[in-house]
Amino acid sequence: MNIAEAAVWLQHCDNVVILIHRTPDGDCIGGGFALAAMLQQMGKHAVVRCSDPIPERYAFLVDETACWQEGIQEDCILSVDIADTKLMGSLQEIYGDCVQLAIDHHVSHQQFARHLCLYPHAAAACEVLYDLAKQLSITITPQIATCLYTGIATDSGCFQYDNVTSHTLRCVADLMEQCPTVPYAQINRAMFVVKSFGRMQLERVLIENMQLLLNGKCAVICITQAFLQTYGVDFSEVDGMANLPLQVEGVEVGITMKEKELGAFHISMRSADAIDVSCICKQFGGGGHVKAAGCRILGTEEVVREQLISAVERSLAEK
Amino acid sequence: MNIAEAAVWLQHCDNVVILIHRTPDGDCIGGGFALAAMLQQMGKHAVVRCSDPIPERYAFLVDETACWQEGIQEDCILSVDIADTKLMGSLQEIYGDCVQLAIDHHVSHQQFARHLCLYPHAAAACEVLYDLAKQLSITITPQIATCLYTGIATDSGCFQYDNVTSHTLRCVADLMEQCPTVPYAQINRAMFVVKSFGRMQLERVLIENMQLLLNGKCAVICITQAFLQTYGVDFSEVDGMANLPLQVEGVEVGITMKEKELGAFHISMRSADAIDVSCICKQFGGGGHVKAAGCRILGTEEVVREQLISAVERSLAEK
Repeated sequence: MNIAEAAVWLQHCDNVVILIHRTPDGDCIGGGFALAAMLQQMGKHAVVRCSDPIPERYAFLVDETACWQEGIQEDCILSVDIADTKLMGSLQEIYGDCVQLAIDHHVSHQQFARHLCLYPHAAAACEVLYDLAKQLSITITPQIATCLYTGIATDSGCFQYDNVTSHTLRCVADLMEQCPTVPYAQINRAMFVVKSFGRMQLERVLIENMQLLLNGKCAVICITQAFLQTYGVDFSEVDGMANLPLQVEGVEVGITMKEKELGAFHISMRSADAIDVSCICKQFGGGGHVKAAGCRILGTEEVVREQLISAVERSLAEK
Repeated sequence: MNIAEAAVWLQHCDNVVILIHRTPDGDCIGGGFALAAMLQQMGKHAVVRCSDPIPERYAFLVDETACWQEGIQEDCILSVDIADTKLMGSLQEIYGDCVQLAIDHHVSHQQFARHLCLYPHAAAACEVLYDLAKQLSITITPQIATCLYTGIATDSGCFQYDNVTSHTLRCVADLMEQCPTVPYAQINRAMFVVKSFGRMQLERVLIENMQLLLNGKCAVICITQAFLQTYGVDFSEVDGMANLPLQVEGVEVGITMKEKELGAFHISMRSADAIDVSCICKQFGGGGHVKAAGCRILGTEEVVREQLISAVERSLAEK
């Protein structure tokens, strides 16, 4: 389904549940609540449902009138930004087989819904939803603009990544013109700049212990159980560290090792440019995207690190 | 002069020297070389001149055919992104009184040129220059697009700050459409993400020594001569640290103290939102913008720090 077809189809639905993916991010939360507001504006009932709670940092996107509640009528199931039913988390069992329309932008989308509105060149699901709002002649309220802007900004690293197109920027320009009062710069500051003092100090210690290997082409940070105990932090606080090693000039592959349980490492791998890290992670039973992939390896820190470095070394040699 | 008038005026000049400001940044370098390329496309001679050398990180913007050389003919002097003749550095003596057209976007511009083309709502001088290029029907080459994009991106913190308008984004969208081959995302990575390993470790040490004061509303980092000696770095390597203190959640004023010579501190002050730091810096004989200002104070680290904290405390109390 293209945007125009999806717009026609949405006219005929009511009592809508909008599913968003587990470990929700700015794009699916912003997209879910923007779509709910759009449908409400069309006179329909619409709520957002997620298997996981909405993180505090995205609380400003949540509209209480659009939160799913036990016992509501559910006639139409949509999904936003979900590339695969597995990503529904615990809701997969309930909704895995009955999504009527999936709206997504992931090139890796595994079709599960009856209808699919997929724009793989869109930087964010929220970019697709803006086009849909335009097609539906929705009035862009400050709440809708806040949701769509946050989704587009977070999925594009504040317009930094190569998923940004002229169309992405024109959508955002439209939002800014239609809702000039939304504090866009403040949203950016909250999403991309501000960190707790503790988080900053944690990053500082990780950078202090960062290892630069293979002639500076590979940087590794390692968060062990012992490290977490020493600094009195838990796993939820060390999320999003995977981009740190790739900040180092000359690094082609950045590795973040996290010891989830004693002797079990969760690996996040990032590529600056030419190396396909999903290939490397596949060797360890993992997978992902060309520039961002992951896997899980059992062993001691030393053994796991050595295995990873050897694999990266082979990839660099093959290049 | 508006864009249209400046465009007409530029038709009649030749043998142009384009001045850019001392300690040149992405916007004045990009703007200078973009304007030179535009004038060259119009069949004119045009070169860029700066009192300081172009930093290595901006070398990709430099066109060797548009660099000033001793003995060239200079019939027309322009300036780009220069808000005050003082910012010409050592070139103020030569050119301070003879600039014929200044193109700028600083609201604080102190008129010095015969003609002024000032757009204070533009995010960057390069945004003004894009409009000028359009008016002049210039073909946007990949080189011009690279220069203009880099200027707009660097002056807006990768489209993060509140100087970004819908017009800014539409200019960039035009650049991307006219020159799709320019590696925009790679430019962003080089400008905003990548750091040398040494720089990263330096930041790490500064974060380790960062002081959080006034109930967490003020964060201070201090780079003394002793610090530089201990870590074997020079002043050119500690540029651009001024945004670090403002990354801390809850901080309203971030202060960076740099001991340029023993007992002489160069102060950079940043405001997250409500405090006007130019007012604070004026008390010490400095100035700047509402959210980014600076001054120079003589004294020991302790005395200077105390003076600054008292001034910030008063500002916070007045708010």
